[in-house]
Amino acid sequence: MYYEVEDKFKEECGVFGIYLNNPENITDAARSTFYGLYALQHRGQESAGIAVSDGKSIQLYKGMGLVSDVFTPDEIDNMHGHMAIGHVRYSTTGESGLVNAQPLVFHYLQGMVALAHNGNLTNNAALRKRLATYGSIFQTTTDTEIVANLLARYAQDKMEDALAKCMIDLKGAYALVIMTEDTLVGMRDPMGIRPLCLGELNGNYILSSESAALDTIGAELVRDVSPGEIVVINQNGVQFKQVINSPGRAHCIFEYIYFARPDSTIDGINVYRSRRKMGQQLAKECQDLDVDLVISVPDSGTAAALGFAEEAGIPFEEGLMKNRYVGRTFIQPTQKMRELGVRLKLNAIAEIVRGKRIVMVDDSIVRGTTSKKIIQMLRLAGATEVHMAVASPPTKYPCYYGIDTSRQEELIANIMDTDEIKDFIGADSLHYISMEGMLEALKQDGLSFCAACFSGSYPVQSGE
Amino acid sequence: MYYEVEDKFKEECGVFGIYLNNPENITDAARSTFYGLYALQHRGQESAGIAVSDGKSIQLYKGMGLVSDVFTPDEIDNMHGHMAIGHVRYSTTGESGLVNAQPLVFHYLQGMVALAHNGNLTNNAALRKRLATYGSIFQTTTDTEIVANLLARYAQDKMEDALAKCMIDLKGAYALVIMTEDTLVGMRDPMGIRPLCLGELNGNYILSSESAALDTIGAELVRDVSPGEIVVINQNGVQFKQVINSPGRAHCIFEYIYFARPDSTIDGINVYRSRRKMGQQLAKECQDLDVDLVISVPDSGTAAALGFAEEAGIPFEEGLMKNRYVGRTFIQPTQKMRELGVRLKLNAIAEIVRGKRIVMVDDSIVRGTTSKKIIQMLRLAGATEVHMAVASPPTKYPCYYGIDTSRQEELIANIMDTDEIKDFIGADSLHYISMEGMLEALKQDGLSFCAACFSGSYPVQSGE
Amino acid sequence: MYYEVEDKFKEECGVFGIYLNNPENITDAARSTFYGLYALQHRGQESAGIAVSDGKSIQLYKGMGLVSDVFTPDEIDNMHGHMAIGHVRYSTTGESGLVNAQPLVFHYLQGMVALAHNGNLTNNAALRKRLATYGSIFQTTTDTEIVANLLARYAQDKMEDALAKCMIDLKGAYALVIMTEDTLVGMRDPMGIRPLCLGELNGNYILSSESAALDTIGAELVRDVSPGEIVVINQNGVQFKQVINSPGRAHCIFEYIYFARPDSTIDGINVYRSRRKMGQQLAKECQDLDVDLVISVPDSGTAAALGFAEEAGIPFEEGLMKNRYVGRTFIQPTQKMRELGVRLKLNAIAEIVRGKRIVMVDDSIVRGTTSKKIIQMLRLAGATEVHMAVASPPTKYPCYYGIDTSRQEELIANIMDTDEIKDFIGADSLHYISMEGMLEALKQDGLSFCAACFSGSYPVQSGE
Amino acid sequence: MYYEVEDKFKEECGVFGIYLNNPENITDAARSTFYGLYALQHRGQESAGIAVSDGKSIQLYKGMGLVSDVFTPDEIDNMHGHMAIGHVRYSTTGESGLVNAQPLVFHYLQGMVALAHNGNLTNNAALRKRLATYGSIFQTTTDTEIVANLLARYAQDKMEDALAKCMIDLKGAYALVIMTEDTLVGMRDPMGIRPLCLGELNGNYILSSESAALDTIGAELVRDVSPGEIVVINQNGVQFKQVINSPGRAHCIFEYIYFARPDSTIDGINVYRSRRKMGQQLAKECQDLDVDLVISVPDSGTAAALGFAEEAGIPFEEGLMKNRYVGRTFIQPTQKMRELGVRLKLNAIAEIVRGKRIVMVDDSIVRGTTSKKIIQMLRLAGATEVHMAVASPPTKYPCYYGIDTSRQEELIANIMDTDEIKDFIGADSLHYISMEGMLEALKQDGLSFCAACFSGSYPVQSGE
Repeated sequence: MYYEVEDKFKEECGVFGIYLNNPENITDAARSTFYGLYALQHRGQESAGIAVSDGKSIQLYKGMGLVSDVFTPDEIDNMHGHMAIGHVRYSTTGESGLVNAQPLVFHYLQGMVALAHNGNLTNNAALRKRLATYGSIFQTTTDTEIVANLLARYAQDKMEDALAKCMIDLKGAYALVIMTEDTLVGMRDPMGIRPLCLGELNGNYILSSESAALDTIGAELVRDVSPGEIVVINQNGVQFKQVINSPGRAHCIFEYIYFARPDSTIDGINVYRSRRKMGQQLAKECQDLDVDLVISVPDSGTAAALGFAEEAGIPFEEGLMKNRYVGRTFIQPTQKMRELGVRLKLNAIAEIVRGKRIVMVDDSIVRGTTSKKIIQMLRLAGATEVHMAVASPPTKYPCYYGIDTSRQEELIANIMDTDEIKDFIGADSLHYISMEGMLEALKQDGLSFCAACFSGSYPVQSGE
Repeated sequence: MYYEVEDKFKEECGVFGIYLNNPENITDAARSTFYGLYALQHRGQESAGIAVSDGKSIQLYKGMGLVSDVFTPDEIDNMHGHMAIGHVRYSTTGESGLVNAQPLVFHYLQGMVALAHNGNLTNNAALRKRLATYGSIFQTTTDTEIVANLLARYAQDKMEDALAKCMIDLKGAYALVIMTEDTLVGMRDPMGIRPLCLGELNGNYILSSESAALDTIGAELVRDVSPGEIVVINQNGVQFKQVINSPGRAHCIFEYIYFARPDSTIDGINVYRSRRKMGQQLAKECQDLDVDLVISVPDSGTAAALGFAEEAGIPFEEGLMKNRYVGRTFIQPTQKMRELGVRLKLNAIAEIVRGKRIVMVDDSIVRGTTSKKIIQMLRLAGATEVHMAVASPPTKYPCYYGIDTSRQEELIANIMDTDEIKDFIGADSLHYISMEGMLEALKQDGLSFCAACFSGSYPVQSGE
Repeated sequence: MYYEVEDKFKEECGVFGIYLNNPENITDAARSTFYGLYALQHRGQESAGIAVSDGKSIQLYKGMGLVSDVFTPDEIDNMHGHMAIGHVRYSTTGESGLVNAQPLVFHYLQGMVALAHNGNLTNNAALRKRLATYGSIFQTTTDTEIVANLLARYAQDKMEDALAKCMIDLKGAYALVIMTEDTLVGMRDPMGIRPLCLGELNGNYILSSESAALDTIGAELVRDVSPGEIVVINQNGVQFKQVINSPGRAHCIFEYIYFARPDSTIDGINVYRSRRKMGQQLAKECQDLDVDLVISVPDSGTAAALGFAEEAGIPFEEGLMKNRYVGRTFIQPTQKMRELGVRLKLNAIAEIVRGKRIVMVDDSIVRGTTSKKIIQMLRLAGATEVHMAVASPPTKYPCYYGIDTSRQEELIANIMDTDEIKDFIGADSLHYISMEGMLEALKQDGLSFCAACFSGSYPVQSGE
Repeated sequence: MYYEVEDKFKEECGVFGIYLNNPENITDAARSTFYGLYALQHRGQESAGIAVSDGKSIQLYKGMGLVSDVFTPDEIDNMHGHMAIGHVRYSTTGESGLVNAQPLVFHYLQGMVALAHNGNLTNNAALRKRLATYGSIFQTTTDTEIVANLLARYAQDKMEDALAKCMIDLKGAYALVIMTEDTLVGMRDPMGIRPLCLGELNGNYILSSESAALDTIGAELVRDVSPGEIVVINQNGVQFKQVINSPGRAHCIFEYIYFARPDSTIDGINVYRSRRKMGQQLAKECQDLDVDLVISVPDSGTAAALGFAEEAGIPFEEGLMKNRYVGRTFIQPTQKMRELGVRLKLNAIAEIVRGKRIVMVDDSIVRGTTSKKIIQMLRLAGATEVHMAVASPPTKYPCYYGIDTSRQEELIANIMDTDEIKDFIGADSLHYISMEGMLEALKQDGLSFCAACFSGSYPVQSGE
């Protein structure tokens, strides 16, 4: 399965877990987890895995590719149990490949455990060293295996105590879903950097990176797991335990800008609405812009573009057509073809843009190369002016909390100022939303965000 | 590769051909055809094939699946030649499978020929019988093999004369791209039912089902092939031959409604603009509708919805989120899960639709089952009223010209009147565009359409 | 599936057909054909196919690779019918690939036909030309498609008459198995070059290239199909029709030397016994040879080696060990590794050959390269003398009747005399069986053989 | 890849390792290991893996299937390094599947290690428990992961000391090949149950389960690794360390009877010659047998049959023909077909056996079902008497040292006496070699064997 490298940050992982009290069918847990992962597919397309438990032992199936490539009806039919956890992965720490795919299932002193993780530990090297000194071996390069070994160190403790001790050890960003033979656990880092929420369906409980996955299986959002909290689900129902008092929230702001699905609500904020508001705010900050038409870079820029169009009172049209077919491979065009203007993923609708002054709205610019090509294409299609408005501030700094930003020297905003970027991408003008404007649009009581990729101000230090 | 059965008519095929005078690279023709087919992928996802000629012999590669699954860089690198034709296929007449995939390549008295076909012959049974009487054998059940055998019957004629004779024999809908070792030919049925256009890139000529594929390789649209016309491209350039005087145009109206890409312009009408106009017209016909919000069924309903919103002066929002990930297989939900409201492909954004009176715009309704599910989902998400507006008239009749309509008894508009359909899908009200309104929106000098799926008035009789 | 190029002639195809009057199970015909092809696998490993008929229509499944790679239980379970024909293929005329795999199934005026062919037509070019003049098209480069088109020319005749007319047209070597919806037919060329036999199992009839395939399904050999004969099997039982009086038999002698299975009996001669006799005869012709041990090149030389050992009164041992594992690919050794004596397929058992004077018996030498390597290996393992005895005369001429001999200039016996070959392969002495000796060993009343690869005396002229 | 269940014990694994001082090519180590594993393929067909080290880090590639299915030229070309170890696997302890395939590669305190193991630990449960108490986690169910964790416990020691401590902990049968970034180590259990030998090629050292793999790459056998010995190979050459004084040798006797290749020499005894001698001894013990012909069950019975024939002065012939083609799947015959005598893997050559009194020699009988079928087949083919002679004593007891014997209740000799077995298989008489006869044939100074599968006398107790 091939995905052309897009000029975007990459979300790293999605996690899901379900505990059914009285499943109608022995494969309901696996099946629901399949749908949950399918709904979280945008968070990772490289590998997918599901572990199920029937109360006695845990069974794992994982593979490379999309959820619906990895699992066949036969495999789901073989996964019996009333509990399951699942994972989709892009990569994070750890090289790619099946060995690093999750969930990770292991035996330890007390039985079997399955683990699925979204995030990145900032003290992983120190933890590995410490564990190895005591004799641990590591078969993968994932953070998840570190958590597993850490848990096994505390094997003499009750599970809850062991997890609490782990939470003291782990630094950085993590949303963990853990399954023993009979218990499902969710835990979220003390600043709530990565998202994790709890859902409910007919008295059964679900954990998920995003609420959209709850919708997909017909469940309701109960609430987000709190920063520093552990949620334990078993035959006694659900129990909450605030292990570490949060030193302050630092929710990843890029979930709202680009990663999460528009139909998810994270920590109380609906993603679509927040994008729309950022578009409106952006329009307020671009009042001098005199154009005929608002278009978006599909699909991620559309919500902001609609907000922009409304606020600015300028018509919105689909000026760009996206080809959404994806296969295992892609044939690269020759240099000559590139010069001739091959348009593989996007095409301008000339009839719409011809003779028009256009503002194109996108959610973010990473390296700027795609923006440059699109603007060129719009001019060829007859647009008389092409302005660009970006619904996030310039991305200048790398992320250490589970997002694949390009290397810092590839981030165009790190090496050019806005005027230089405007020239590079060939726009008539370029407008980023202000940091204040973005925060204003996302404003909600009691919430604060990690915006380190824009500000360089990191809530957790590396190595800490 | 799995595509869930959507409640839509299915386009059957896309064709593409290119003749390069001076290719920079021996694989340019194959590579360009790959991109052309990739741009036409929406016209058929079941199989893909490319035949190239280096002037001396023709080489074929075809396979099941998406263009980017069938072809790897290695295969393209092995396809040497300055000419190529390609085909993507859904099915049409002829069972599925690799043997029926196109292009069809064959040897006959004068050498080698490759054929790619979009359409459906209405006299295929009679032609097969006639050819078999003279000793023809058939290894497939495709119309394409009939055309090939017919051509071989006239092997003693000059190619142009042979093709003209074929055109006299063939009845129904066809857009054919034919390649001998040294010549590329396009031909279109006398009523122009299926689309076929001619493009140009630096003095080289291209044939394509849709103009969007020309854009994709950086070429320009010259003009559509005329009904009853043969276009011959070789080292002498391009020549046009009007073989049969068109008895009247009958362009497939569903290309504008749903099949073709919005960025294509077919027989002089841009598809996106035509959909937008149909949306405007639809709004004019729904003036009594008092709602708060216009949403579309993504992606095909969006252009009409934007037109509707503009005309009606009601805000447009993305109220439905589509999951676009597609894999080889799909796990079917259990009955219980269906009842619980599993939402696999579409989800409502509750925050947008909650408490709102909504009109949902779609391009067409075939069986009505999907519309029913979406309306239910919108109500669950909190919409207070859900009205449905359809940018095409009720589809009541099957197509015999290359479109896979469901069986007539499955077409909901064939068995229910509008009021019954409204009840079936659970809408507060249901509005189809009128036949006159639709034709008004598409009105253009000199054009007329086949709208048999709405009217039952067929331009070519079956068996004729 | 990878098969290292061995230094042997290659058999081209195997055919099989079965007609069951009262199958116990609807898949019995397909299943039996699977076993028949599995038993004939040595005749072709490139592709395999089975066509079944349920009396009304014919269904085909074919693929690249071994029989047990191509067919899964699911596919066999889907092949319903009381009749079936099957084919395994190496290549012959016609490039490789799935399109050329057999059986060929086609529709013609009278219905459906499936064809499977072993052999090579010497007048294929002339026949193609003649057919094309009448309007035939060819989608493959196989002889089989020529036979199919020829048959369709005579579609107005009764099947038997049509086949008789075909037999008059076809020149060269052929063993054909043909299936219409309700009748199974076998036909063999007028000189009986390629083998074809008739078997019987509980009143049901079977056609097969070799009798060993009859044994495999528990059937009994009735008799070989006569040269120039057509065998028709249907609900009326079996009927024989001598269409062309044989101008003289010319059974391929290489079937006895190397191609056929030792447990087959062809035209009255058991293959194992004939090889054993050739070994005995060879020993008689090598009476001056003073050695301690007879070994064979496994597996094809073993029967002759046992005969040689018995006649010569010298002990036989397994001096060479063959690695029989075969996978999809093979890693080529570097030049350095070759020099160091990498032994991938064969290894000498040093403990057996050390200090011994050895005669190594093989069935034939084609290019001599393998013999050279083995002799070198035996000397390294400590053999003091290595003599080579070959149970067939020097192979000097290409075959035009369905065998893949190397190109004539690669046949070592075509470019060197026996003494030069002995030096090339590094043997202490080299002994070929005499032509007379070989014929003596095979002597049977009424039989004569094609030995053109040794003598250059061809029973049917090319182009004839 | 499908292998029909044969009525034999199954060898579990093969190991191989190589250290090149000055490789000509960066892939020489991987390539040689590929050939080594190919030569050891008979020891395990389920999975294959190779780990290479370039002195700095270790890279692993493994997969399910035959060596030549798992590795392509591309993969070998990517494996750079001057050291490598490899493994082929049938199964042993631990469920099947890629996760359990070897080598196992892990990081620990001192760097990276790769491990490949043949054998079975008798105290694995106790070791797992002990390790888990200290916090170890287990991702597989293999013994190999136990060894890895044990080694990591001693990470503060020098590697040699750590390995010596492991040897004190490990009980049972093991032949281990271990690779750190810069050192190759071999170690063999204190009784030498499983084989392991050291080879040399131009000053470079190799470790292998069998000497035939040394031959394959052109290397020479130096000597077998001694029971309880560790062999360390690095840039300082090769060093030997006798860690544990062997309490007495207990070489697996079944390596000589069936598992090992005839061209291997293990602990000083050539396998082919030992089988031949057992055949001779068997003949001595069957002097009353009055038959016309000796045949073998191919291929494993042939060496013994040749010895038998020589000693008895009765002619040997190939009376049974084996079909050696193997694919991914196999179609099971219906019950009716079985009754009709389907002969898929073996066929009798009627012309050889008809009218003859036959003794059939095989290496062993496990469940007796195959022997029964063959004897029936020989009678159908016309043999007047069929006697069976077995070159090993009755197999009555399971193996705990790395061999997959059937369950004890399936071992026919465990539930029947010889006379009953004779009746079950339908032989005219049945002769097993005596225990004394077998040991006599294998007699060699200083050697003793584990023959627990015959005697029930186990050299290492389970759980010990």
